[in-house]
Order: sequence, then structure tokens, then C-alpha cells
Amino acid sequence: MARVAYVNGSYVHHAHGAVHIEDRGYQFSDGIYEYIAFYHRRLLDGELHFQRLERSLAELSIAAPMSRKALGLVIAQLIARNEREHGGLYLQISRGVARRDHAFPKQARPSLVMTVGAAKFPKPDEVKHGVSVITQPEQRWARRDIKSISLLANVLAKQQASASGAREAWLVEQDGKMTEGAVSNSYIVSAQGDIITHPADQNILGGITRDVLLRLAANDGLKVCERPFNLDDVAAATEAFITSTSINVLPVVRVDGKPVGTGKVGDITRRLQRLYDTHVFEQTGFKRDDLN
Amino acid sequence: MARVAYVNGSYVHHAHGAVHIEDRGYQFSDGIYEYIAFYHRRLLDGELHFQRLERSLAELSIAAPMSRKALGLVIAQLIARNEREHGGLYLQISRGVARRDHAFPKQARPSLVMTVGAAKFPKPDEVKHGVSVITQPEQRWARRDIKSISLLANVLAKQQASASGAREAWLVEQDGKMTEGAVSNSYIVSAQGDIITHPADQNILGGITRDVLLRLAANDGLKVCERPFNLDDVAAATEAFITSTSINVLPVVRVDGKPVGTGKVGDITRRLQRLYDTHVFEQTGFKRDDLN
Repeated sequence: MARVAYVNGSYVHHAHGAVHIEDRGYQFSDGIYEYIAFYHRRLLDGELHFQRLERSLAELSIAAPMSRKALGLVIAQLIARNEREHGGLYLQISRGVARRDHAFPKQARPSLVMTVGAAKFPKPDEVKHGVSVITQPEQRWARRDIKSISLLANVLAKQQASASGAREAWLVEQDGKMTEGAVSNSYIVSAQGDIITHPADQNILGGITRDVLLRLAANDGLKVCERPFNLDDVAAATEAFITSTSINVLPVVRVDGKPVGTGKVGDITRRLQRLYDTHVFEQTGFKRDDLN
Repeated sequence: MARVAYVNGSYVHHAHGAVHIEDRGYQFSDGIYEYIAFYHRRLLDGELHFQRLERSLAELSIAAPMSRKALGLVIAQLIARNEREHGGLYLQISRGVARRDHAFPKQARPSLVMTVGAAKFPKPDEVKHGVSVITQPEQRWARRDIKSISLLANVLAKQQASASGAREAWLVEQDGKMTEGAVSNSYIVSAQGDIITHPADQNILGGITRDVLLRLAANDGLKVCERPFNLDDVAAATEAFITSTSINVLPVVRVDGKPVGTGKVGDITRRLQRLYDTHVFEQTGFKRDDLN
């Protein structure tokens, strides 16, 4: 199966996908992206991703390269050409190619690049027994709510996690407030059973999985409290977990080497995993067991 | 004259210079850059730029794609092929091409891209009568000392300046401290005649022009005070200016529409312009008048 990418209007062999050296995405990280999971070739929460995509573009005053409808058709075509049943669609839009100058060019056509790859499911063992995270200083810029490709701070934090054998790095502001993970949203469950997570303001990226899960949790009678938490809250927490498009709901059982609660995956996390798996099934017909 | 770029080992027509869509520079802004002025085909302060380049790479754990000596030879070749007497060399190194994953890839060869363009000299009128700047909130990440391509915050600030008809945006932290401009270092001259500029810590990019100029100023008997200044300091200042590789020393006569001092270019700024022009001449034989 040849891997196919979509690059500025053409379907090309993945290995040959290229952009100009003066693409502003390459010189200034002047662009945005989305990563959308698909199961049985159906996008999970595609409309929510498209909404966020359009918001990111609007915040940066980048014109949409095509209508939402046209984009949906190209994505379907790209998934079909890649002959992949389940996976992830990566989509990146930059301001386009222009002579290097920080200010927006007067004329530039936005660049659109899309690739399709295997789903990055966590290992079954991670889903069942949970993962470890470390903490790292929050070093990102002020507009984390824009899903931009300006990701160097995320890269460095995630690398620190990888180097320490942890799944993720939780980012901590100088005042001790924890924002989110380098590549996922972060949550704890308090002794009272409340799900606590940072509000979706400019300090974090409002994840689609986050939004969906919080709605599912509330609908299921769980109490959700959107406020920043700190390391003391983590020490007092009974459970913790992270969410993202690629990992869904993943239990966290250690933070900086210390067990969260009993150090075992808790009931509320399990319940949220089930709620989310049901959501995926209802929308796409996919069951995690389909993989096994 | 055909414009020629250097891309990963090859000299190519500028229009055909391309990098892979999964270059980490494009997906994560995981890379660094330098911009070096050349006059009469001689790099200005080339060694200082190479030192900073190597520091940026080291901070991000990116291997140098070639030795400093080899790089110097390729640069000389590229400038010669572009048949340009004075101009700017843009050099960008990313961590290379790898399957998308935030953490560093186990194996990746750094990408090296270089282009040569016309010098971006300020207009003679700007050099003579000074420019206006506006202030903007400081929104960049915590490691501004690394000359990375993670420049989206700089882009947005510079765009605000351009949209308001100003030459530059001076960035202001929440506590009122001013760091530097979006694309240049910023300075004021106090009523006592001291040159005040932010220290070269992690909060600003230590400009080469800045370092050279501060040395020239001190050697010429001027007092240099490296400390953050705020808007009150600007209101009390008698002069202001900005420096960068492309603009050298450019007087600032208005900040947010308010005149600095008398609103005219001051004596110390003029003296610094002369000192820097002499530095350029001594190293490259170039005189600003050569352009006219």
C-alpha cells in the first residue's frame, strides 16, 4: 500500500511531499494544524475539529484554503487512497509562501498539507494499568488556545518525558498552577470524586476529546470542576488521567515518581474510558476490541 | 541573475528549493536560524553568528550539519553563485525529517537550508529622522535566547506594528518590563546619558549587533546599563533606538505615538550610528554611501 499525501492541490507519494523553503510554516511556524482520528474511515468528531480549525485560522487571520465541505471531500478521498481503515489524519495549514518578512505578506495563498497514518493507540497495558508523567516548567507562549505549529516548547517538554521513561510531561507555571500536558489535557479526581481540569482559556489548548469527555461526564452525573490544580492537589488526588485525540482517556498512576492515590487506575477513570469508548462506537461503529 | 538556494547538499534554483512535509521545522518549528549581513561578499561578524548558531543548536540538542569551516565555504560559494555584492544570508537548520512525534526522533539528519537576498537596509529617511514603534503584550515562550524558528508570537507583534504604520513593536511583560522588539533589540537613553537595554538573559535574544554595539559604546566612553526598562523610563528618556542585523542602529522617535525626548534623533544615537558604520567599514570596507 503506497502512502499518499495531499499537498497544495495534489495527491502525491508521501515520500515526495514537499513545500517551498520560504513557506511561512517553515520559517516562522506561521500556521495551524489538526489531528483527527478516523475509525472505519469515519472522522471522529470531525465537525468539532473543523470548528476548531476555523477558529485557529481566524485567530491568525489566515484564510481557509477551501470550504469545510470541500475539505471533507478531499479528506475522504485521501483516506480512501491510503486504504486505511482506522488511523489519524494530520492536517496543516500555513500562511503560504512569501519573501521572508515577519509581517503578513500582502499576497500569499495558504498552504494545505495532509497526511494519513496509523492510529497511535496507546499500548493495551497502558490503557489497563496507566502511565507515568513527569512535571516540567511551562515555557510555551501566551496563546496556547490556538492550535499552532509553534510547538518547540511542547517538543522539549515531551522529549524530557521520553528521556525519563514517562508517557507525558505536565506543565507547571511559575506560580505552581498546572496547565496541561505537552501533548494532552490533564485531569485529576479529588477525594470528593470531582473531576478537576484547567479551564479552556488562553493558557491551554481546548482539546476536542476534552470537550466531548467533559460533556459525557456531566451527562453521566459526574461533577466537573474547571479550575487550575497544583502539585498539592495532585498529592491529594485519588485518580488522574490524560486525554487527546490519539490516546483517548489514559489513566495516570504516577506523577514525578509518586503514586496518584493508591497508584492503581481508579473507578472514575475506568468509567470515563467506557463512556468515551461508547462515544467512539456510537459515532463510528468502532470497538477497541476490533483491533485485537 | 538566477537566485540560488542551498538545500541539504544541493545548490538549486530558489523557486525549486523544497523540504519534505514531515521536516520537523515545518511541523514543530523544531529548528534554529541565523541572518548574517554581508558587504562586498564578506560576512559581518560571521564568527559571532556562528558562535550563536552553535549555541542555539546545542540548546536544542541538534547536531551541526557540518563543521564551521565547511559552512563558511558553502556560504561563500552560495553568495558567489548569487552574484550579489551586499545582502543578507539566511540560514536555517531543523532537526530533520521524521515520522511525526513530538519527542526527538532516534535518527534524523538535520536539514540545512540557506538563501541569499538583497540587504534589507532601512530607508535613508528612517536612518536620518527615526522611526515610530508601538508597544504590544509580550507573548513569546520562555526561551527567547534561542534563535529558534518558533516565531509566531514575533510575527503577530510585527504585524500589529505594520498595520499601525509603525516600524517595530516593543514587547511589554505583564509586570510592565519591556523586553525587546519583535525583530530587534530595544534601547533608551536616560536623562543622564546612560544607554539602557534589557540584559541578555533568557527573556531576549542576544543580538549580535547588540553585543557589538554595546562593546563599541563602552569603548567610546559611553555608559551602558543592562537592565529592563518600562514605559515610565521611556517617558523620561531623551533618546531611543533599535538594532538588528538588517537595520544596524535605527533611531526611534515615537513610542505609541508619543515623542521620545524632543521627538528628534539625539546625539548619542547619532554617535552610535557612526561607531557602528565604522565597525562595518573596518571589517568589510563597506560605507553606507556606497549604496547611493
